[in-house]
Amino acid sequence: MPTKTTPAPTALAAELQQQLVDLVALGLVAKQAHWNVVGPQFRALHLQLDEIAAEYLTWQDEVAERATALGAFPDVRPAVLLEQQSVKPIPAGRLKDADVARLLVERLDGVIAATRTRVDVVADDPATQDIVIQVLQGLEKQRWMLRAQLA
Amino acid sequence: MPTKTTPAPTALAAELQQQLVDLVALGLVAKQAHWNVVGPQFRALHLQLDEIAAEYLTWQDEVAERATALGAFPDVRPAVLLEQQSVKPIPAGRLKDADVARLLVERLDGVIAATRTRVDVVADDPATQDIVIQVLQGLEKQRWMLRAQLA
Amino acid sequence: MPTKTTPAPTALAAELQQQLVDLVALGLVAKQAHWNVVGPQFRALHLQLDEIAAEYLTWQDEVAERATALGAFPDVRPAVLLEQQSVKPIPAGRLKDADVARLLVERLDGVIAATRTRVDVVADDPATQDIVIQVLQGLEKQRWMLRAQLA
Amino acid sequence: MPTKTTPAPTALAAELQQQLVDLVALGLVAKQAHWNVVGPQFRALHLQLDEIAAEYLTWQDEVAERATALGAFPDVRPAVLLEQQSVKPIPAGRLKDADVARLLVERLDGVIAATRTRVDVVADDPATQDIVIQVLQGLEKQRWMLRAQLA
Amino acid sequence: MPTKTTPAPTALAAELQQQLVDLVALGLVAKQAHWNVVGPQFRALHLQLDEIAAEYLTWQDEVAERATALGAFPDVRPAVLLEQQSVKPIPAGRLKDADVARLLVERLDGVIAATRTRVDVVADDPATQDIVIQVLQGLEKQRWMLRAQLA
Amino acid sequence: MPTKTTPAPTALAAELQQQLVDLVALGLVAKQAHWNVVGPQFRALHLQLDEIAAEYLTWQDEVAERATALGAFPDVRPAVLLEQQSVKPIPAGRLKDADVARLLVERLDGVIAATRTRVDVVADDPATQDIVIQVLQGLEKQRWMLRAQLA
Amino acid sequence: MPTKTTPAPTALAAELQQQLVDLVALGLVAKQAHWNVVGPQFRALHLQLDEIAAEYLTWQDEVAERATALGAFPDVRPAVLLEQQSVKPIPAGRLKDADVARLLVERLDGVIAATRTRVDVVADDPATQDIVIQVLQGLEKQRWMLRAQLA
Amino acid sequence: MPTKTTPAPTALAAELQQQLVDLVALGLVAKQAHWNVVGPQFRALHLQLDEIAAEYLTWQDEVAERATALGAFPDVRPAVLLEQQSVKPIPAGRLKDADVARLLVERLDGVIAATRTRVDVVADDPATQDIVIQVLQGLEKQRWMLRAQLA
Amino acid sequence: MPTKTTPAPTALAAELQQQLVDLVALGLVAKQAHWNVVGPQFRALHLQLDEIAAEYLTWQDEVAERATALGAFPDVRPAVLLEQQSVKPIPAGRLKDADVARLLVERLDGVIAATRTRVDVVADDPATQDIVIQVLQGLEKQRWMLRAQLA
Amino acid sequence: MPTKTTPAPTALAAELQQQLVDLVALGLVAKQAHWNVVGPQFRALHLQLDEIAAEYLTWQDEVAERATALGAFPDVRPAVLLEQQSVKPIPAGRLKDADVARLLVERLDGVIAATRTRVDVVADDPATQDIVIQVLQGLEKQRWMLRAQLA
Amino acid sequence: MPTKTTPAPTALAAELQQQLVDLVALGLVAKQAHWNVVGPQFRALHLQLDEIAAEYLTWQDEVAERATALGAFPDVRPAVLLEQQSVKPIPAGRLKDADVARLLVERLDGVIAATRTRVDVVADDPATQDIVIQVLQGLEKQRWMLRAQLA
Amino acid sequence: MPTKTTPAPTALAAELQQQLVDLVALGLVAKQAHWNVVGPQFRALHLQLDEIAAEYLTWQDEVAERATALGAFPDVRPAVLLEQQSVKPIPAGRLKDADVARLLVERLDGVIAATRTRVDVVADDPATQDIVIQVLQGLEKQRWMLRAQLA
Repeated sequence: MPTKTTPAPTALAAELQQQLVDLVALGLVAKQAHWNVVGPQFRALHLQLDEIAAEYLTWQDEVAERATALGAFPDVRPAVLLEQQSVKPIPAGRLKDADVARLLVERLDGVIAATRTRVDVVADDPATQDIVIQVLQGLEKQRWMLRAQLA
Repeated sequence: MPTKTTPAPTALAAELQQQLVDLVALGLVAKQAHWNVVGPQFRALHLQLDEIAAEYLTWQDEVAERATALGAFPDVRPAVLLEQQSVKPIPAGRLKDADVARLLVERLDGVIAATRTRVDVVADDPATQDIVIQVLQGLEKQRWMLRAQLA
Repeated sequence: MPTKTTPAPTALAAELQQQLVDLVALGLVAKQAHWNVVGPQFRALHLQLDEIAAEYLTWQDEVAERATALGAFPDVRPAVLLEQQSVKPIPAGRLKDADVARLLVERLDGVIAATRTRVDVVADDPATQDIVIQVLQGLEKQRWMLRAQLA
Repeated sequence: MPTKTTPAPTALAAELQQQLVDLVALGLVAKQAHWNVVGPQFRALHLQLDEIAAEYLTWQDEVAERATALGAFPDVRPAVLLEQQSVKPIPAGRLKDADVARLLVERLDGVIAATRTRVDVVADDPATQDIVIQVLQGLEKQRWMLRAQLA
Repeated sequence: MPTKTTPAPTALAAELQQQLVDLVALGLVAKQAHWNVVGPQFRALHLQLDEIAAEYLTWQDEVAERATALGAFPDVRPAVLLEQQSVKPIPAGRLKDADVARLLVERLDGVIAATRTRVDVVADDPATQDIVIQVLQGLEKQRWMLRAQLA
Repeated sequence: MPTKTTPAPTALAAELQQQLVDLVALGLVAKQAHWNVVGPQFRALHLQLDEIAAEYLTWQDEVAERATALGAFPDVRPAVLLEQQSVKPIPAGRLKDADVARLLVERLDGVIAATRTRVDVVADDPATQDIVIQVLQGLEKQRWMLRAQLA
Repeated sequence: MPTKTTPAPTALAAELQQQLVDLVALGLVAKQAHWNVVGPQFRALHLQLDEIAAEYLTWQDEVAERATALGAFPDVRPAVLLEQQSVKPIPAGRLKDADVARLLVERLDGVIAATRTRVDVVADDPATQDIVIQVLQGLEKQRWMLRAQLA
Repeated sequence: MPTKTTPAPTALAAELQQQLVDLVALGLVAKQAHWNVVGPQFRALHLQLDEIAAEYLTWQDEVAERATALGAFPDVRPAVLLEQQSVKPIPAGRLKDADVARLLVERLDGVIAATRTRVDVVADDPATQDIVIQVLQGLEKQRWMLRAQLA
Repeated sequence: MPTKTTPAPTALAAELQQQLVDLVALGLVAKQAHWNVVGPQFRALHLQLDEIAAEYLTWQDEVAERATALGAFPDVRPAVLLEQQSVKPIPAGRLKDADVARLLVERLDGVIAATRTRVDVVADDPATQDIVIQVLQGLEKQRWMLRAQLA
Repeated sequence: MPTKTTPAPTALAAELQQQLVDLVALGLVAKQAHWNVVGPQFRALHLQLDEIAAEYLTWQDEVAERATALGAFPDVRPAVLLEQQSVKPIPAGRLKDADVARLLVERLDGVIAATRTRVDVVADDPATQDIVIQVLQGLEKQRWMLRAQLA
Repeated sequence: MPTKTTPAPTALAAELQQQLVDLVALGLVAKQAHWNVVGPQFRALHLQLDEIAAEYLTWQDEVAERATALGAFPDVRPAVLLEQQSVKPIPAGRLKDADVARLLVERLDGVIAATRTRVDVVADDPATQDIVIQVLQGLEKQRWMLRAQLA
Repeated sequence: MPTKTTPAPTALAAELQQQLVDLVALGLVAKQAHWNVVGPQFRALHLQLDEIAAEYLTWQDEVAERATALGAFPDVRPAVLLEQQSVKPIPAGRLKDADVARLLVERLDGVIAATRTRVDVVADDPATQDIVIQVLQGLEKQRWMLRAQLA
């Protein structure tokens, strides 16, 4: 039951799919760091990383359900995830607290840059653009809070 | 007490008034279907339609109160409603569950198309435009959830 | 699947349908006044009218779902609403706070009189009568609170 | 410590005892179906039957405690339950979703008919009658929601 | 702004005023016993009496606000209270736990008898009658719970 | 089981008993005004008076239970209340909104003056004094809020 | 759709069915005692028995849904209940508070002994055993609380 | 650790700093009026001004934390506040209720005008613009509610 | 970083340390009695003792954190506790309900007497005195509730 | 800081790592199906899949944090996930509601079988075994609820 | 409408005004540090400073509303604030975490000393003194928590 | 009233008593450290230690009430506590944050080792063993979180 009023979803869907896999990847980073962080800042980071991970879950749903609203079908199967996501892997094993903020900021930098570009790319669909802006705002706020710990 | 800083509300107010009456009309459709639906999917639809109706109530308030912020006076009197709203009536009496999603999607299609156009029309007033985009986003999400049932 | 134990719903359903459309009409009055009231009493009335409107929503559901329990199908389509409801329209545009209570009391008077009569009409069906009595009680309490402002 | 102001509880107590055992019996039906239902509608029915069962628990307390207020002693011992309750047993084992609503409606029909008669029988004790009317209203609402699924 | 649809409030108002002062008087009894009870059952009674007192507060509001809905003005000034209320005073000072239930049941008996009669007296005004029946139901439930302690 | 560590309760108990009956009397004033107020400020006063009345209930419990902690037995029987309390009666019947604040401020003035004196009288028992100071603080805050309406 | 990984449910299901009917039977005992208890300890027991009954409801669901997870179909029809459950009936009518704890402890003793044996019987299915242990723990805690009242 | 993807914060930061100090200034106006208002509308305004002040606190955090996300450091030191904020002082001492709404609307007019201009100035950074639009929407809604009281 | 504005904490700290160990000791008494009480009043006492124990936990934190605010370091190590606390041990093993209230009142008497003296001793530090008065008030309220059970 | 009391974590950690990646994989399956399901059962499945996904998140944390308690470092990096997890991929794109339950049951079967084996493998560490049993119980309950829809 | 029972507010009001402006000044310090702190302790301080700021808001209301209860009019206009408040400004721009606690303790020291003196100055008005003592207690607790970080 | 179904409690009770006194001792350690910790990590540890202390309170109740369920009487009198508990005392006075985690881990090591042994010792009573396993799981999770801070 196609309707003329929705834009052709192909390009938008690709953008949303990329946003989604990057948010899933960041979520796995956040949980792994939540578990593996050590050092005097353990507790502060352990709690902060769980809040960050919860934000990724919320945004994943918003991004994926916008894609479905446009007629697309989000794909987060492990193989697809590995192939499409753009977040550099973090080291396995224990993570020193002093390194965690830096590791996350580096990974956020890439996703933020792509998201900032995406805001313009999806400008023709204001409801999609609004969601991308919300995600960008949230990612940049996360980056501030982590970067402040590196100062 | 007119102030130079608010745009002349006439055109914006007309857009918001049209949005409002269509949301009231969709709300009456949703409640009527909430009560009159029958069939094996009764319970799922009965609950979903109540959630949809609650969203219309929220959006009606946001749209109407934006109109008042611009100095306009919203009008939902039954005669005005009947004359201005653009939603095609649903059949009276019992509604087969298999038909409910289709009936609603058809009515959503029209309001979504008008709302999508409205986003551009009100672009000069960003605070108004933001509300219209939120409504558009919500209507398209409702449509996805209903259309998915028709697949 | 008719059952002997339910009364023939025709007369009861007509009463409940009339009660329903009048409650929807009062609800639209309450919301419109909620938005359009002006004057020193703005805030008190703005809040009170929203509480009143919320009561109408609750009673609409109880009345409509009693009708469905009796096998009837409630109808709140705009055209039906306009034709059947008995509430005199309020003026369009701004509503002076000093007038709002009087406007509502006048409209409540009519619906209360009809509801009071209805209590007797539906006396053969105690479960229906109980709902009508609850609505009557609520409408008369609303009237007291508004009328007290006119003294 | 008898008091003249309470009616002789014998007849009323018998009515309330019958109402109670039927509500316990319906509660066991609802829980058994909650567990044993199968078919595509599993989840919707599984949740609905739990809500229905919770309503029976509430009503059981109201009915039994009205009996105690009249000086009677409710009896729900298994042997008494089996002997007094009037609800036809449901089949053991798996219950096809398409059959569950019909099974429950048939059992509700009997209890509703008896409850409707009971409203008149207890008319001399308005506080008891009020409780019986509430139960009747609730049972008929349950029946609508189940019957709607058979249409 | 008199309206033909409300019954002449004189007789009804007198009934509601009597109900109100008796509920205020019972409330003072319950609080005084809440504070002055002694004995091994102190804690159980101390808590129970506070719940009972809270019920009187709820019912006072319902009764008084029904009176205002009928155009009457409730009166609970100490002198009026003393003159109109029908509840026999309890003894000053400490109250043995074994006596508290008996003292309250005796006072409840009188108010229950009057309330039971009142149900018929106010039968012409169903919305008033409904409130009186609720109060009666509640008072008889309180009496059961207290009387059970005397067995 | 007397203990040397508690002060002889006679004088303190008399102070607390006086505080208690005045708080009960103010509570009855507040509820009566809550019901009987009329005029454009009806709603604001109706809500404010209920909050005020709720504060009296809280303070009554604190004062009475401090008395019991000192071995005294609070007395709020209607006859005792009428004889001991010092609050001048308010007029029966409808209360114009413009008069309500003034009526209450006048009655608060007296109780505040007595409470302020009481703070010194009970100075030997710091736990009692602390409660009296809290009540004084609360009464003076109520007076400000009412007096502000008279300006 | 049988799967090799689940144990043959026959023996386990019989154990869970027996646990279930005994929990339903205990639940009916608890509710009947909740209503029929009399004596100075009325209130304490009335509340305690309701908490106990609520625990039985929780455990019934856990036991029954474990049975369904194993492919069985729980059966709580009144005739089955009467035939299978092992709890000795309590006396009809009023229950003296001094007897209630003893009556319940006697009935708990039997079910606890059977449940303790059952823990070993179901040892091959650890997920089932875990549930039986939880129930055992809870029943023994209930017994302590009741038995403590007999000391 | 500068990153190319964030815009040079200088201009944006100046806009956000100005927005912040004006929101702090409006917050101090709202609290001062919350305390100093007198007149028959005292209570309605006292409550409304506290809600308004709470909104300023929320927006201050959003604006300041967006500035930090851009690498800036918000400054609300009293001397900076006094120098940078643009809100005309309100009169000291008591504030007649009839004047409060007018005083606030006048101050809102200025901040709204500046905020409306700011929406365009920050258009290159969509995440910042989104926050400014939300603030604008909220300020204009506050103005409507206050202006409605002047009609 | 010593500051002239805080009083030399030595004497105050000793008082707070003594208060703290007595509150810990009372807390252990309350929990032990919570577990070991037997008799018909089991449940009432079991619940009451848990509420009492929770109050001790709250007060321990307030007292200990006031000590830290004065620069002291609270000490609750078991050996210190045993040496410093002044509460006579309760008997091991089962505690008859009829004895529990008496056992606790005897122990409260001593701590209350010491606390009452302490109010004067710490009078030079009003913030400390305020906390001690709150504890005294609470201890005396606990004593009333327990002593009332002995009457 | 090794301690003799913890078992050598190597084997246990490998079991927990396998459990973890399978739970992450099932979680991605559940979310993807939550988004991509279509058909008349859309809403029931959409909601059910979100509850299932939330359970996986809870279990992931319990399993991963048990691993950390044993000194291991969980690894959920996309490449590791893809390599280690044992759940067969679901088809991309739209998922017919009639297929979703079957797809999930098939994937649950494998993880349940492995988890059931794991219960024995980790038997030497009772705290680990307890967590594995909880997960097994939960997975088998999910399977029942899905399998019931296939009947 | 002056009343003899309230003390001449001039001196008291000056004390409360000084307390108020210092609490506003501390609140601005806390929020600025909440935003501008950097370093490994960022998150702990960011959260702690927000809790501290929330306490200042609460105390501001209590102090200001006590002033109004005494007939005074609090003044927090920026110019008044700058002139009257006694808190030394903090540095603009980024704040190293290691410095934040020291900066705040230094500013608290001054306000605590003044507040401690104020307790005696306002001793004639016990209700005012009680509020000042509460604020002192809270400020000294904040100082402990910050000073502990410097040890 | 001995029953054959409960195991002879002597040995089990001794295990539970030892577990209980060690949990009380750990609880005192946690609270003392909660108050006396100093250093840059003050706030994180202050909060973490309070959560840890709360867990000890929960487990104390579960362990003690299992003992009572077996007919034993828990004993936490200070002299018994000092004699039986096995936790090495912590130093008095200030605790450097860098030392706190180590101090606690050392004390946890001992209790964990004993608890791990206890799991086997109580294996004949599955309901007891289940509680001991829960405590072991919790203690080991606490240890991980503290030990992670030492890395």
